[in-house]
Amino acid sequence: MRYHKIPDETVRRLPVYLRGAIHLSQQGVESVSSASLADLLGVKPWQIRKDFSYFGDFGTPGVGYQLEGLIKQINKILRLDTGPKAVLVGVGNLGSALLAFPGFRMYGFEIAAAFDADKRKVGRTKNGVLIEDITRLRRIRRRRIDLGIIAVPEASAQEIAKALVDVGIKGLLNFSPCYIAVPKRVKVITIDIAMDLARLPYYMPSS
Amino acid sequence: MRYHKIPDETVRRLPVYLRGAIHLSQQGVESVSSASLADLLGVKPWQIRKDFSYFGDFGTPGVGYQLEGLIKQINKILRLDTGPKAVLVGVGNLGSALLAFPGFRMYGFEIAAAFDADKRKVGRTKNGVLIEDITRLRRIRRRRIDLGIIAVPEASAQEIAKALVDVGIKGLLNFSPCYIAVPKRVKVITIDIAMDLARLPYYMPSS
Repeated sequence: MRYHKIPDETVRRLPVYLRGAIHLSQQGVESVSSASLADLLGVKPWQIRKDFSYFGDFGTPGVGYQLEGLIKQINKILRLDTGPKAVLVGVGNLGSALLAFPGFRMYGFEIAAAFDADKRKVGRTKNGVLIEDITRLRRIRRRRIDLGIIAVPEASAQEIAKALVDVGIKGLLNFSPCYIAVPKRVKVITIDIAMDLARLPYYMPSS
Repeated sequence: MRYHKIPDETVRRLPVYLRGAIHLSQQGVESVSSASLADLLGVKPWQIRKDFSYFGDFGTPGVGYQLEGLIKQINKILRLDTGPKAVLVGVGNLGSALLAFPGFRMYGFEIAAAFDADKRKVGRTKNGVLIEDITRLRRIRRRRIDLGIIAVPEASAQEIAKALVDVGIKGLLNFSPCYIAVPKRVKVITIDIAMDLARLPYYMPSS
């Protein structure tokens, strides 16, 4: 099922809510008010209520949101209930950190394959994932992998993006601080770590 | 100078606009329309105009935004013109990737110090930054470093956050997928990489 007309900004916040809901659920909490959830996540309660209003209402007045149902619903909207698989290209420092990252499993993700151009890395296993030769990227065609993670140097990012799209990847998570051109049907999310750091000084008290 | 009443969501987008403006400026472009800038960045033109309206207007009808002035103004609002310095704690795979990351310089940042608990790493230099002993963290007090980057395992993140706040750090960029408790005056931005990946399947065409 596909939910239409959900604003991008709401889609961006859904994983935040999901993380908060999973966190509370793991602590044995069964339901939460929008005020408590907002406080935990550092957002406004009206924002949560507005975002949830796009796809139905899980709240019960005086009780709040029932966490189990909320988690299930967000997973469904984001299509995380299908157990999405990702291929990682570039097993350098960042790529290695991603392979070891505990957060993916929380959302039902799996990095199912890894590729690198460095022959010394090819054939090795890292966090249970075999590192394969980048020239053999077409191998992933039959493995039902829809997502690509680009963790290569900036100069190779565009070329790798094209190669991934050519073998059928439908969505890209790009860690290179550059723009990547792909066909319109492919969604690219670029994570520019410096961009997040750049927001911090704004909030700092004057010294 | 501090600009008040700018919504968090606008502050979040300012570095995105800044990056786009720098990108265009480096290509020799002098001014850009909100429509072209929006197209480059994948946002809506009205969003850009609304965001910019919070702190003045750089646009000239028929000409667009003058890039040099725009870059200067955003840098000022975000306080990036002060040349903020950050201390990195944790020089594992992720920390090493951050030290090598080319994006920070673009925004005028500097990772000015790095600390780790591993004695084998202490004393080494990575990307021009000396790795120091975490037990000596109080050394940074005199170095005019305001920002902290936490790239340690989840189990140590809270403890490191407290230590950083104790030595005067005013803003934290946290890469551990966990909640960190700090005094209200300290701003924490948590980067959960899995959260960004979690948005991708939503946008993928049904297969």
